[in-house]
Amino acid sequence: MTKTEQYGRLMSEYFARMEYPSMPRLLYDPIRYTMEDGGKRLRPLFVLAATGLWAKDVSVALPAAAAVEMFHNFTLMHDDIMDNAPLRRGRESVYRRWNPNVATLSGDALMILSYRQLALSPPELLSQLLELFNEAAVKVCEGQQLDMDLEETVNVKPEEHLEMVELKTAALFVGAVSMGALIGGAGRADVERLREFALQFGIVFQIQDDLLDTYGDTRLGKTVGGDILAGKQTWLKTYVMAAANATDRAELALIHKDLCYSPEEKIARVLDIYERYGVRNATESEISRRFDITTKALDGLSAKVYRVAEFKEFAMSQLYRTK
Amino acid sequence: MTKTEQYGRLMSEYFARMEYPSMPRLLYDPIRYTMEDGGKRLRPLFVLAATGLWAKDVSVALPAAAAVEMFHNFTLMHDDIMDNAPLRRGRESVYRRWNPNVATLSGDALMILSYRQLALSPPELLSQLLELFNEAAVKVCEGQQLDMDLEETVNVKPEEHLEMVELKTAALFVGAVSMGALIGGAGRADVERLREFALQFGIVFQIQDDLLDTYGDTRLGKTVGGDILAGKQTWLKTYVMAAANATDRAELALIHKDLCYSPEEKIARVLDIYERYGVRNATESEISRRFDITTKALDGLSAKVYRVAEFKEFAMSQLYRTK
Repeated sequence: MTKTEQYGRLMSEYFARMEYPSMPRLLYDPIRYTMEDGGKRLRPLFVLAATGLWAKDVSVALPAAAAVEMFHNFTLMHDDIMDNAPLRRGRESVYRRWNPNVATLSGDALMILSYRQLALSPPELLSQLLELFNEAAVKVCEGQQLDMDLEETVNVKPEEHLEMVELKTAALFVGAVSMGALIGGAGRADVERLREFALQFGIVFQIQDDLLDTYGDTRLGKTVGGDILAGKQTWLKTYVMAAANATDRAELALIHKDLCYSPEEKIARVLDIYERYGVRNATESEISRRFDITTKALDGLSAKVYRVAEFKEFAMSQLYRTK
Repeated sequence: MTKTEQYGRLMSEYFARMEYPSMPRLLYDPIRYTMEDGGKRLRPLFVLAATGLWAKDVSVALPAAAAVEMFHNFTLMHDDIMDNAPLRRGRESVYRRWNPNVATLSGDALMILSYRQLALSPPELLSQLLELFNEAAVKVCEGQQLDMDLEETVNVKPEEHLEMVELKTAALFVGAVSMGALIGGAGRADVERLREFALQFGIVFQIQDDLLDTYGDTRLGKTVGGDILAGKQTWLKTYVMAAANATDRAELALIHKDLCYSPEEKIARVLDIYERYGVRNATESEISRRFDITTKALDGLSAKVYRVAEFKEFAMSQLYRTK
């Protein structure tokens, strides 16, 4: 069993043992529904993997890891309301299966439960852990607001888009590895290196997610072309908007609101524009370039060489290399 | 200057010094809008007053007190969405002034900021403070869900209503005094007494709020009769529902949805039923009865007699005696 599989099993067992009250049903059923689904549980695995760089037994980091995952799931419950997203991991989103009020309040409770998990961490580290957790949590909210702001903006530059991604997506990876490293007993320089790594990892992870939404892989339970139909700002869209002529820019900016085309036609037209500006290649190059930076950030870690290699393998196996 | 005024000033100064980032504007403007309004700030004053029972300098409790108030304000932002409440303290509620998405996300951020405040408390107490805070926070969510469940229930018994009030309203008072007492250095028996006091105080406070909504006092920035028009379950309504004949029960249960009466007529008809069952007197008796229990809970406290007297005076001055 690899380290990754071992951490995955630890995490699954931990969540399987977690109990929620039965009443009020409408408060806890949506939490169970969301948490039982699991998904990749990438963020809590990063907590454990960071702890495992220095500590032999990572189980002391399980509450912090669970807290990060529960916080992430709370954000999904609320984001799906704000984004009118009917599907999550291939199932109905909470606000659609129940209603927006239920998703709001259950999400609130799940966030509180994430803090309750965090509080089970070693008391002598709690103050610092709470600081790292809060820092990430605030950034995630700022990122979600920026994301909604950018939805209302016509000409979003790729840099502006990536600033949003740093907050909305990467900040929680940064929080996860910082918390894990702190629990593992890492020094300041190591924590900084891991934070730099996680920031880049989060960005690559998101760019890749955007690429897959447009160019395939239905394994993720997502409809291909969903971002195009929703008019979402993605790395692909901002890249093409920056490169395109006025006609193409106008079409890209407005087509998702057009009532004359069918969804299939909209996707085809956007893909046609994308192709003319070579966005698929450009995105794959951007991923490769950042992938290398991400890997290098890990090289100076003070942990044992074979542990760094394990960590690197785990992290990189979560990214789908395109070339 | 009385102790209450002194604590009120400390709290106001603390909030006045608190700064929020300027961007993203739609995330932080609603937080500023909500927090600048202030209201009575009763819950944080209870934190300080409980600390002041034993400690001379209560300023060490300011972060915990602020955390309680910020958490309370977060719940108002989200509750107003769920309850479609257009007004809050006489001004537009956040979801109405902006929109539900803004109120959801700003509320989330405000909850996180409340934990950030709490984390500024003495590190050696943080673990216990977090536990008390989380316990109260979860109960408030459970109470809000129960409240929504009871809205859909025709025959709510007064006991069921009060169970909800214990969670939705009283739990945060219980949390406030427990945290304050812990910071002040109280022993276990004193904390238990204060918790019993705060539970009763919270219930009396809510029953009184219900009474004022129906029988007056526009100082609170509320429209008189608002609960009646919204068909809200209140202590008054559940009392009359339990006592009334079938005809009156049916009218009380449905009148807020009736399209034939004007708002004024609805209020007049409900008041007429209320009067026949003597609900005003019954409510005032219930308040008096609980008021006495509330006061007695404070008698066995180990703190200095004059400090207990100050605390009692502060607490009781927040309740509007009806007889």
